[in-house]
Amino acid sequence: MRPSGRTANQIRPVSFTRQFTCHAEGSVLVEFGNTKVLCNATVEEGVPRFMKGQGKGWVTAEYSMLPRSTHTRSDREAARGKQSGRTLEIQRLIARSLRAAVDLKQLGENTIVVDCDVIQADGGTRTASITGACVALVDALNWMRAKGLIKTNPLKHMIAALSVGVYQGTPIADLEYVEDSAAETDMNVVMTDTGKLIEVQGTAEEEPFSFDEMQEMMELAKHGLREIFDLQKSALN
Amino acid sequence: MRPSGRTANQIRPVSFTRQFTCHAEGSVLVEFGNTKVLCNATVEEGVPRFMKGQGKGWVTAEYSMLPRSTHTRSDREAARGKQSGRTLEIQRLIARSLRAAVDLKQLGENTIVVDCDVIQADGGTRTASITGACVALVDALNWMRAKGLIKTNPLKHMIAALSVGVYQGTPIADLEYVEDSAAETDMNVVMTDTGKLIEVQGTAEEEPFSFDEMQEMMELAKHGLREIFDLQKSALN
Amino acid sequence: MRPSGRTANQIRPVSFTRQFTCHAEGSVLVEFGNTKVLCNATVEEGVPRFMKGQGKGWVTAEYSMLPRSTHTRSDREAARGKQSGRTLEIQRLIARSLRAAVDLKQLGENTIVVDCDVIQADGGTRTASITGACVALVDALNWMRAKGLIKTNPLKHMIAALSVGVYQGTPIADLEYVEDSAAETDMNVVMTDTGKLIEVQGTAEEEPFSFDEMQEMMELAKHGLREIFDLQKSALN
Amino acid sequence: MRPSGRTANQIRPVSFTRQFTCHAEGSVLVEFGNTKVLCNATVEEGVPRFMKGQGKGWVTAEYSMLPRSTHTRSDREAARGKQSGRTLEIQRLIARSLRAAVDLKQLGENTIVVDCDVIQADGGTRTASITGACVALVDALNWMRAKGLIKTNPLKHMIAALSVGVYQGTPIADLEYVEDSAAETDMNVVMTDTGKLIEVQGTAEEEPFSFDEMQEMMELAKHGLREIFDLQKSALN
Amino acid sequence: MRPSGRTANQIRPVSFTRQFTCHAEGSVLVEFGNTKVLCNATVEEGVPRFMKGQGKGWVTAEYSMLPRSTHTRSDREAARGKQSGRTLEIQRLIARSLRAAVDLKQLGENTIVVDCDVIQADGGTRTASITGACVALVDALNWMRAKGLIKTNPLKHMIAALSVGVYQGTPIADLEYVEDSAAETDMNVVMTDTGKLIEVQGTAEEEPFSFDEMQEMMELAKHGLREIFDLQKSALN
Amino acid sequence: MRPSGRTANQIRPVSFTRQFTCHAEGSVLVEFGNTKVLCNATVEEGVPRFMKGQGKGWVTAEYSMLPRSTHTRSDREAARGKQSGRTLEIQRLIARSLRAAVDLKQLGENTIVVDCDVIQADGGTRTASITGACVALVDALNWMRAKGLIKTNPLKHMIAALSVGVYQGTPIADLEYVEDSAAETDMNVVMTDTGKLIEVQGTAEEEPFSFDEMQEMMELAKHGLREIFDLQKSALN
Repeated sequence: MRPSGRTANQIRPVSFTRQFTCHAEGSVLVEFGNTKVLCNATVEEGVPRFMKGQGKGWVTAEYSMLPRSTHTRSDREAARGKQSGRTLEIQRLIARSLRAAVDLKQLGENTIVVDCDVIQADGGTRTASITGACVALVDALNWMRAKGLIKTNPLKHMIAALSVGVYQGTPIADLEYVEDSAAETDMNVVMTDTGKLIEVQGTAEEEPFSFDEMQEMMELAKHGLREIFDLQKSALN
Repeated sequence: MRPSGRTANQIRPVSFTRQFTCHAEGSVLVEFGNTKVLCNATVEEGVPRFMKGQGKGWVTAEYSMLPRSTHTRSDREAARGKQSGRTLEIQRLIARSLRAAVDLKQLGENTIVVDCDVIQADGGTRTASITGACVALVDALNWMRAKGLIKTNPLKHMIAALSVGVYQGTPIADLEYVEDSAAETDMNVVMTDTGKLIEVQGTAEEEPFSFDEMQEMMELAKHGLREIFDLQKSALN
Repeated sequence: MRPSGRTANQIRPVSFTRQFTCHAEGSVLVEFGNTKVLCNATVEEGVPRFMKGQGKGWVTAEYSMLPRSTHTRSDREAARGKQSGRTLEIQRLIARSLRAAVDLKQLGENTIVVDCDVIQADGGTRTASITGACVALVDALNWMRAKGLIKTNPLKHMIAALSVGVYQGTPIADLEYVEDSAAETDMNVVMTDTGKLIEVQGTAEEEPFSFDEMQEMMELAKHGLREIFDLQKSALN
Repeated sequence: MRPSGRTANQIRPVSFTRQFTCHAEGSVLVEFGNTKVLCNATVEEGVPRFMKGQGKGWVTAEYSMLPRSTHTRSDREAARGKQSGRTLEIQRLIARSLRAAVDLKQLGENTIVVDCDVIQADGGTRTASITGACVALVDALNWMRAKGLIKTNPLKHMIAALSVGVYQGTPIADLEYVEDSAAETDMNVVMTDTGKLIEVQGTAEEEPFSFDEMQEMMELAKHGLREIFDLQKSALN
Repeated sequence: MRPSGRTANQIRPVSFTRQFTCHAEGSVLVEFGNTKVLCNATVEEGVPRFMKGQGKGWVTAEYSMLPRSTHTRSDREAARGKQSGRTLEIQRLIARSLRAAVDLKQLGENTIVVDCDVIQADGGTRTASITGACVALVDALNWMRAKGLIKTNPLKHMIAALSVGVYQGTPIADLEYVEDSAAETDMNVVMTDTGKLIEVQGTAEEEPFSFDEMQEMMELAKHGLREIFDLQKSALN
Repeated sequence: MRPSGRTANQIRPVSFTRQFTCHAEGSVLVEFGNTKVLCNATVEEGVPRFMKGQGKGWVTAEYSMLPRSTHTRSDREAARGKQSGRTLEIQRLIARSLRAAVDLKQLGENTIVVDCDVIQADGGTRTASITGACVALVDALNWMRAKGLIKTNPLKHMIAALSVGVYQGTPIADLEYVEDSAAETDMNVVMTDTGKLIEVQGTAEEEPFSFDEMQEMMELAKHGLREIFDLQKSALN
């Protein structure tokens, strides 16, 4: 039995609130149960130095948790003067995943930055961020087309992400904090709506996991992500 | 005529949403029109090193703007590796103001940190932060009494803040962004609900201001803050 | 009775030593009693990036206290690797005040940086810095005219600053350290020699202050600053 | 055909030189073809603050590339003043993997730090680091037993790591730089010598990968890692 | 002929102004011609962590140039966020030299920090700093004895420093800026008043120097330092 | 008697392994007994900003010790976020010495960076670094000529360095760690193969040294460096 009473393959209620703030070209509050992340997509002219002159665009992301988005307060990274390894790792993952969704050539020499700021955390903030960021990205691309900045749609496919894990010996989907902190294994899967994989990151927290357990977790992820793709599409209509 | 159509002494709609997030001991979303700030108060055991052994508590604050809370995106301070002078100045102002509301002796050796994170900015983020932070602080103090951490109520009085300024030659109250960015003078006033002053910070942006203009701005602030104190009290009942 | 034996509105002896060092375009040692600040104005070709191409100049300032300018030694900010919030706040105040004294268009695309380094501190270092920096600024502008870098005089008016406060219930002018550290309220006023206000920053340290006390402090400031403007002018002749 | 002429499942020559330097408790130069990493294990008394008083030990790792270990020189991280996101991500991976090999309770309140410094890079530096670090860790544990610091052997199992990927449509094992930089997918697998998984990190660099391709890459990893475990064991005898 | 008209072995006028500021336990303005350095010695209870529990004291130093102590303005190190290699090298030299003058055991567990802040630079700031710092150190030691913090005098001997060099083929003493910036070789010598050496640092700036030139420079240093020791002693009487 | 059994003027076995790594234009492992430093020379197009447009090249160096190159582990500078004063001092010394060996005009607008990374330390790492870096520099210059980047040979002379000191009252050459840490005086001498001096840095660690002792140490350095120049030349043939 899961603490939440959910079945092994049952994900939490997932929702997307578009235009959550008024300035960003794409602004989405994504919720996976009690996990709430604000994903703001900004369109900027030009590209970083290392991309200049290639006629291609760039997509990047930043991630942060509000100091009191968690059970106890964490230090503010801006005050400490550096981002933690965990933060950098997560924002690199979000950015790579988003770039895999976009044809950078069709973007022209423009940059899209997606800021994922965790307002409230209850497990799965990185996967919620990717899932919400993709919706904000779509809104930003539509804004670009409406403004005439791009002619075609650079989106190759939707992406979404889900955490799965092994909890008390059983593979389960969409871990919330109490499950996550006690899980033997934790795995994050980023997938396209065409059923292919972008990222798989599995970590044995307490005990090594078998090839079979990995297989089962992959199946749970595939199943849960199909539901999430449907919700993403509804939100965008 | 103000861009917003407001009269010179008319403030924007002000609202407070308590328990906006679930982990903090006090969590308030304060809105002054389109300016929205999330104020989370955290109670921590112990005090900073320089306060140890005095039997007194401490109240402090941190302030940050989400990168895309503004019209164009600003660099994330955590990524740049330091907080700007403006940020430090604002969080010092918030913290000093909050400490002026509390009898630190009655707090015991506990610390309250109030995080003010600007979700959306349209002028007056520092005054909205102070005003919302005071409500979050009250919720945190009530939580402490309910938990038995303190016996008495350390709150000396409520505090609130308002920006006033001289815009096209006329003193006005509660400037929004388009007014603020074009104002000749900008003044922030922090007051107690007993009608006394905590902080006054007036700055000539374009033109020096006269002693008379200062007097008029002070009157506007006093008037507007009375309305805000009523709204704070309603929110807390 | 004030610890110094001064009357409530009596300022300390104020003096300006021009050409205190030999390299800077303007170099002034300003003294307010035992508070001594070296203000060096440097003229540099060009402007910061955000000002480029507007045909206007820029004026900025930096502030620092020598580690042992105070009763006990403070850490050196260069060694600690960052400037404190207090330092940043003060140098932003000095810079804003100086910019209010200059017509940036007449300055051409040149920058004046005024370094205010506190040699010895006894209260009022920020107001002494502003008052001395204005004299160094005038010397630098005269140097620019002598060199033919500018044709006209960009100075709009002299500026000077004074601290006032409420000490043991009585408003007083020009607080020295023993007064400042015990004052209920501390207020810094930056004024033009034409009698208008540039900055007003009042802070309740111990007790909130009334609108009437504020009025009295403003009068003390106006009175004291008239004396200081006379001394500035003598020093420049 | 692979640039190296290797078959799809053929790994490069792997070697371990123990006691490569004279001061460290474990010192191993690991080579995967032209990739050479020096892994030095240091035994230190005590544990980090967050682990104190639990009667358990700690294992951690640091990773760095010498500036000219690569084709072109990279900036030295110590000179730039911070470690890159990539570096932090890799050293977190190495450390997590090593901790999964050790029973921290049997280690007592001691810390083992393994420094992985890349002397020469040709793809797969993180997997080589993990594989060599495990040998250095074993030497350090043996040193501890010889010194009487621990009574039992805290090693739960050996670990090793291998990179696999999809290159020109074909899954291959142990990518060298020219393959890695052109691969569609890159996956790092950390395994125990008992055939279980510690970490799996797969990333689509150019094209999303299918569940089937993932399966094939996992098989290649399992196969290659068996060879590597044999080499590790020979090196330790 | 030297630009200054001085003979090869002629040093500049050297002076010491004690009690230059009022807070420091030793405060000396040292002048070597136009080079002016303020040396403030601070006595602090306790020693740095690595010295604790040995019953010995510690002497250290910090060095900085005011941004406009030089012909053109340098960036402020506190603003840049780090001290330059040159600064660190110089303050390490000053500190080592001062420690060589003191018997740390007789100092008890106390620390003396000497801050050397260059007010005006015209060559030889590091040697002037050492020479002035020694006088400030003596004043601080006398203050400690007067306060009863120490019973004996920990001073082993006076120290002083002088720069010598090869300028247009001729060895000369006490280089000023125009000489220093054109010299072939630059050498700094720190000596005791008992005629022994503490530090010798010779650097070929343009051309390697011969063993004979080195010998001549050493003689010039010995000669000049004898004069300086006389001036130090006069200043202390 | 020296701990090593060497005579006072006997240096340790010195060796140079060229092409130690495969990517750098010059790559030399230099060994002075148990001290081992990897010196990688990188050729880069262009020069630092302050050298631009002068038609001259630049030579610089960086130095680092692997965390466990020493008896006990030191913190990694990249993790601490800054290079120590000792590191900066040493790499400035190496860079200045190398520049003294090269005619920068003949180098064209190219930069050579020599990275000196200490693999294993047993005293004299800075002098070994300089000695090995010069060989790597020669290899890099030869590479440039072979590539046609330069037409002439910019090398003015070979350089090498040796540490000497006073140990238990006797001047000795090439101190290893146990001698170095107990020596009264430590001196590093950088010389050209034409018998002239580039740098002399002598430091009294425990006791001031006499002019005569200095003379003796200089003789030991001259003698030992002649041997080293022979070994350098053999290595290059």
